[in-house]
Amino acid sequence: MPKRYGQSCPVARTLELIGDRWTLLVVRDLLPGTRRFQDLAASLAGIAPNILSDRLRLMEEHGLVSRRLYSAHPPRAEYELTPKGKELGVVVGALASWGSRHVYRRASLVHAGCGHEVKLGYFCADCGGRVRGAEVVFERARRAARPPRPSPRSAARRRPAARASAG
Amino acid sequence: MPKRYGQSCPVARTLELIGDRWTLLVVRDLLPGTRRFQDLAASLAGIAPNILSDRLRLMEEHGLVSRRLYSAHPPRAEYELTPKGKELGVVVGALASWGSRHVYRRASLVHAGCGHEVKLGYFCADCGGRVRGAEVVFERARRAARPPRPSPRSAARRRPAARASAG
Repeated sequence: MPKRYGQSCPVARTLELIGDRWTLLVVRDLLPGTRRFQDLAASLAGIAPNILSDRLRLMEEHGLVSRRLYSAHPPRAEYELTPKGKELGVVVGALASWGSRHVYRRASLVHAGCGHEVKLGYFCADCGGRVRGAEVVFERARRAARPPRPSPRSAARRRPAARASAG
Repeated sequence: MPKRYGQSCPVARTLELIGDRWTLLVVRDLLPGTRRFQDLAASLAGIAPNILSDRLRLMEEHGLVSRRLYSAHPPRAEYELTPKGKELGVVVGALASWGSRHVYRRASLVHAGCGHEVKLGYFCADCGGRVRGAEVVFERARRAARPPRPSPRSAARRRPAARASAG
């Protein structure tokens, strides 16, 4: 079980699930589709089988992957991301985007259709318009309990926490 | 020094720099602006001072933060994200966005201007149009060495690796 941070924060809570070494690389390798245990062990060269097994078990417990036996004797399993797990693709994409600009420039994220580079950015879920990273804040309140345009009191509970130059 | 994965991949290379426990929370807490060591130690309750010190030193070595002494006797330092470090905001934003949907629903990412929820998605760096996550691929070639619309040969070097349902 990963260590906890004990923080009331979606970033910390998420890292408690996927912050362990290897876990995000397992997500990366499952994004294209179902993979067998052996195939994951091969693409993640260097991972010990018991560590891979442990990571997959935790991911299954957290609802990130589903497991299916494709052979009973001997028991052989294959793994697939759940919809919740697939949504981690944007985290992998953010790491890939940053990494391709700063630490591994021999690869970049491109649009398969036209070959142009793609970037990650924020957009409004309501109108679809682009939102600059500097204008993005955490809002600590349940969505149902507040109107879209908040009062000064609820604005005071906000803090800027996700500023990004990519926005 | 974090362990290496030994992979030719921008995701793995990025995790070698920022995959250690606490590092992305340090980035999160520096996104709003300069912070003193003591302030970081306070907001990251539970981190041992020597671990925080070690994380900040590595981040400085990797060009993610800059350090400035604001007192010489006793020596006291404050830290600020470099432009390269600020660009990690999108990684923190991706974790926050996923976490606020799946593991910590008491906070969400909103547009400070209108209060509506914001999401992360891919955009074409050329035309600015939205790109679906399923259409995003890694391209393993230097940008300068290839035209935007690639030949069948370079297309064969691509692999889908960053599919995201957020797109």
